Amino acid sequence: MDALVFDAYGTLYDVHSVVQRCESFFPGAGGRLSQLWRAKQLEYTWLRSLMRRYAPFSTVTREALAYACQALSLELDAAQIEALMSEYNRLAPFPEVARALEKMKARKAILSNGSPDMLEPLVRQSGLALDAVLSVDEVRVFKPAPEVYELAVRRLGVAKERIGFVSSNGWDAAGAKSFGFRVFWINRAGAPAERLGFRPDRTISTLAELDEVLR
Amino acid sequence: MDALVFDAYGTLYDVHSVVQRCESFFPGAGGRLSQLWRAKQLEYTWLRSLMRRYAPFSTVTREALAYACQALSLELDAAQIEALMSEYNRLAPFPEVARALEKMKARKAILSNGSPDMLEPLVRQSGLALDAVLSVDEVRVFKPAPEVYELAVRRLGVAKERIGFVSSNGWDAAGAKSFGFRVFWINRAGAPAERLGFRPDRTISTLAELDEVLR
Repeated sequence: MDALVFDAYGTLYDVHSVVQRCESFFPGAGGRLSQLWRAKQLEYTWLRSLMRRYAPFSTVTREALAYACQALSLELDAAQIEALMSEYNRLAPFPEVARALEKMKARKAILSNGSPDMLEPLVRQSGLALDAVLSVDEVRVFKPAPEVYELAVRRLGVAKERIGFVSSNGWDAAGAKSFGFRVFWINRAGAPAERLGFRPDRTISTLAELDEVLR
Repeated sequence: MDALVFDAYGTLYDVHSVVQRCESFFPGAGGRLSQLWRAKQLEYTWLRSLMRRYAPFSTVTREALAYACQALSLELDAAQIEALMSEYNRLAPFPEVARALEKMKARKAILSNGSPDMLEPLVRQSGLALDAVLSVDEVRVFKPAPEVYELAVRRLGVAKERIGFVSSNGWDAAGAKSFGFRVFWINRAGAPAERLGFRPDRTISTLAELDEVLR
């Protein structure tokens, strides 16, 4: 592999602190809120992409939060909304990530749905060893549209067969495999494989295993 | 309005019998199974559309069922899978639908994600008064891609401004509005409006109200 391309949210960065912040605002209901928020966030990326009505991930994320709060009859004031959104800018990497990235010799990049206003502060504060941070914002469509994966090929100048793609999202792994990457699915939660006609080349349980698998 | 175009599942036809059949196979877990099945069914239509890997709705529906069963550790044998799938072919229309359709003078059509192998038996057995049954299968992409709504314009020969579109799915209503139809959202469940940048022109609670609204 000449380049390794990583998903950000849930793959390199743990979104658990967002869940905790939801719980701090709504004790006992934080789990339900963060789950519906996340589900709607993804759903809106797919729907807006299909409608050809792209909006940056920060906008989609706010709209998904508003929907989730209304659906669960929970009320957030403006300061609480900002507090939840700002959690996304300071997520912690999973414990094994910094060391695992340092050991990898190939070029390393993030390819994320996140808009630059979310990705830049996140990557800066985490200090991870990355050569490039690519946002779907450049192509104005979300994963798993092939245009997104093609962006990595173009920006890294590496053929797709020479790119290893790593995601914790089974549907992202399927989309990347359909596009033509070599795909590693980090199945941290032990989820069933998505049935989308494409399976990842390898399934691993943490990023620490990737180095071994690549040898 | 020169034509009225209706979504099928959940709009004209009640999917409750599918839920009941799930419950008969897994007492106490039927609700969870049918909910996850439905969520995955939609998710797969969006993901496959974005991946440009269309498969007919009958295939997607089976794949979603397999995922949902695995995720919930429920096992179905081949006969039970066929029994669940066949429920889709004989859904009952909501109680007000037959009479409401008969009262409408405009041309009436279904525009559905359903593949012809699912829609044909469904419409035939229900005997609803429809002038056309259009399936996304013709354009090989699912809702809310604009190509789907365009299919109705082309096949009915009516300008989009003269088409009234009716759906119980908020995201379908948003997609149709983004395309340019006049849109009526049947919000049977009292759900919050989707935040996708487009609102329906009118929200109604059953199809019986449509006739009044159209006057």
